[in-house]
Amino acid sequence: MVIPDVPPLGKRNVANVQATIDGKAKPLGALGRLEALALQIALIMGTARQLQDARLIVFAGDHGLTVEGVSAYPSNVSGAIANLVLAGTAGASIMAAASGIDVVLVDSGLLHPCGAHSRLRDRRIAAGTRNSRRGAAMTISQRDAAFAAGVEIVDTECQKINIVALGEIGIGNSSAAALVAHAVTGIPLAQLIGPGAGAPAGGLDHKRDVLTAAYARAPTCDPATALAEFAGFEMVMLTAAMIGAAAGNRIVLVDGFIATACAAAAVALNPNVRERLVFAHTSAEPGHRLLLDYLGATPLLDLGMRCGEGTGAALAVPLVRAAGAILTDLANLPAGSPP
Amino acid sequence: MVIPDVPPLGKRNVANVQATIDGKAKPLGALGRLEALALQIALIMGTARQLQDARLIVFAGDHGLTVEGVSAYPSNVSGAIANLVLAGTAGASIMAAASGIDVVLVDSGLLHPCGAHSRLRDRRIAAGTRNSRRGAAMTISQRDAAFAAGVEIVDTECQKINIVALGEIGIGNSSAAALVAHAVTGIPLAQLIGPGAGAPAGGLDHKRDVLTAAYARAPTCDPATALAEFAGFEMVMLTAAMIGAAAGNRIVLVDGFIATACAAAAVALNPNVRERLVFAHTSAEPGHRLLLDYLGATPLLDLGMRCGEGTGAALAVPLVRAAGAILTDLANLPAGSPP
Repeated sequence: MVIPDVPPLGKRNVANVQATIDGKAKPLGALGRLEALALQIALIMGTARQLQDARLIVFAGDHGLTVEGVSAYPSNVSGAIANLVLAGTAGASIMAAASGIDVVLVDSGLLHPCGAHSRLRDRRIAAGTRNSRRGAAMTISQRDAAFAAGVEIVDTECQKINIVALGEIGIGNSSAAALVAHAVTGIPLAQLIGPGAGAPAGGLDHKRDVLTAAYARAPTCDPATALAEFAGFEMVMLTAAMIGAAAGNRIVLVDGFIATACAAAAVALNPNVRERLVFAHTSAEPGHRLLLDYLGATPLLDLGMRCGEGTGAALAVPLVRAAGAILTDLANLPAGSPP
Repeated sequence: MVIPDVPPLGKRNVANVQATIDGKAKPLGALGRLEALALQIALIMGTARQLQDARLIVFAGDHGLTVEGVSAYPSNVSGAIANLVLAGTAGASIMAAASGIDVVLVDSGLLHPCGAHSRLRDRRIAAGTRNSRRGAAMTISQRDAAFAAGVEIVDTECQKINIVALGEIGIGNSSAAALVAHAVTGIPLAQLIGPGAGAPAGGLDHKRDVLTAAYARAPTCDPATALAEFAGFEMVMLTAAMIGAAAGNRIVLVDGFIATACAAAAVALNPNVRERLVFAHTSAEPGHRLLLDYLGATPLLDLGMRCGEGTGAALAVPLVRAAGAILTDLANLPAGSPP
């Protein structure tokens, strides 16, 4: 697994950038959290260059673990939602349209391939992962191929994009995310287990039993190992895309619970990624707040959503754009203005 | 003062609209507060018609009360900010650009007229209000003219617009807003007094003394009287614009503390306005939360901003667009899907 190099964020310009922000035509600090975000953006980009454009990349994959009955939904719903993204009528599509950005769907390993479409990028590793209750979800070489594809996709799709919003589709991936998050953060597994898209017929107790057994099969706190043992292909690509985007000095917009579990894995693989992440929204999935606390993150939005697909990340794009524009488009105060 | 008629919101379709929302391609309730907003939008518009477009209207006026030293900023800063809005480099401008909407600036009564500009609408009532510490801020006929202009502006500027974001500019108007809000809500005046754009040289104690004396000069709980006694021209127009937009079945996006004080006045003038209001953000101005509680409102955003100008209202536009698109653009679930 080739992990792109991400240097620590240069802090040499903090005072200069802060002085620039403080000298803008607004009362001191009056743009609140967007000012802190403006500082982060400036440090990520290295200069106060104009933000160029944003894009939502949605990774989709299926999970062998679903045979254990961990979700209310059958596995083929992943493909159905992926096809709605292609058609422009999914939740992610309407959020992206509201924010004025395009969506790309990556087939990371759905059970069934989608038909050809201008929004589709085929990076299928396999027709779903294997059942992680019984064995590793994927082979090491599958993991490495998925990771490489996640890095490559950002490079290919984001040539002139520096706000990268990332989402995922995959029935069963709130289970996979709980396992990966438990492995890399040490937060108790039970606290990371919630209904996801919908609690299974057997209830959350059943989901807890399955995940406890799955983790006991291959306990680890190594992020690369945890990805192979428990993740979906879409999650490995999402993790890699975060690191790749960070390596390219892009702003990474992290969606909800599953994306945040991937963020925890990405930060475990390279702690310098953390400073390039912007957390979009607080999910209603109960484990999300614990993961956010672990990462020291306070998302921009809190709207009670728990839809995945990158819906929250897409919605937060205008806030990032606005924060970037504080540096580049907001007038300066005339000299001698009150503080 | 001719107050447009605003009928109660028809509730006959609530169950139908909710069933439509529940039948969309997402887990039940998974879009959180945007689903409640979608219901509100559908009821306001009467059908599930497509949202058309959004616009930010910023009303600007000066306040005679500033001679009492209630703000850190001199009165002519209002005009300076208004000119930045015309130039497209104000806080409101960059937020509107990030959300993809146009801005119109209404000169409601600045000390000095702005130069001609395509974004400017001249509705000047006078060169600022009078000092409300010593007498009524405006005459009854000025108030009525300002009110009529606020209604007219929405009709003129929002022919094909059904998301109306409203903001204000006016040094001293956190004082005027505290007085109006106290009059119409009964919330203790002291609790409504905060730094606004910047605490005056004499500190908040001085501001409190001035406002207490101003209110004692003409105590009232009548909203129309309170507007004439204490408001600015921009606030009367903002209040009227809310009622006018509500009368036209438009969605009204309410900005921060001053706009919310105007919303309280609008609701006092016609309680049916309340159901057409969408609160954009929670201001860092301390009195705002009290006003929001009084109105039973939970804003969409909480980013620690306290900039006015409609910055928060502009930022919330994509969220309203996205909520509207749940009804019109999100796919339906196939029949027989899990709940």
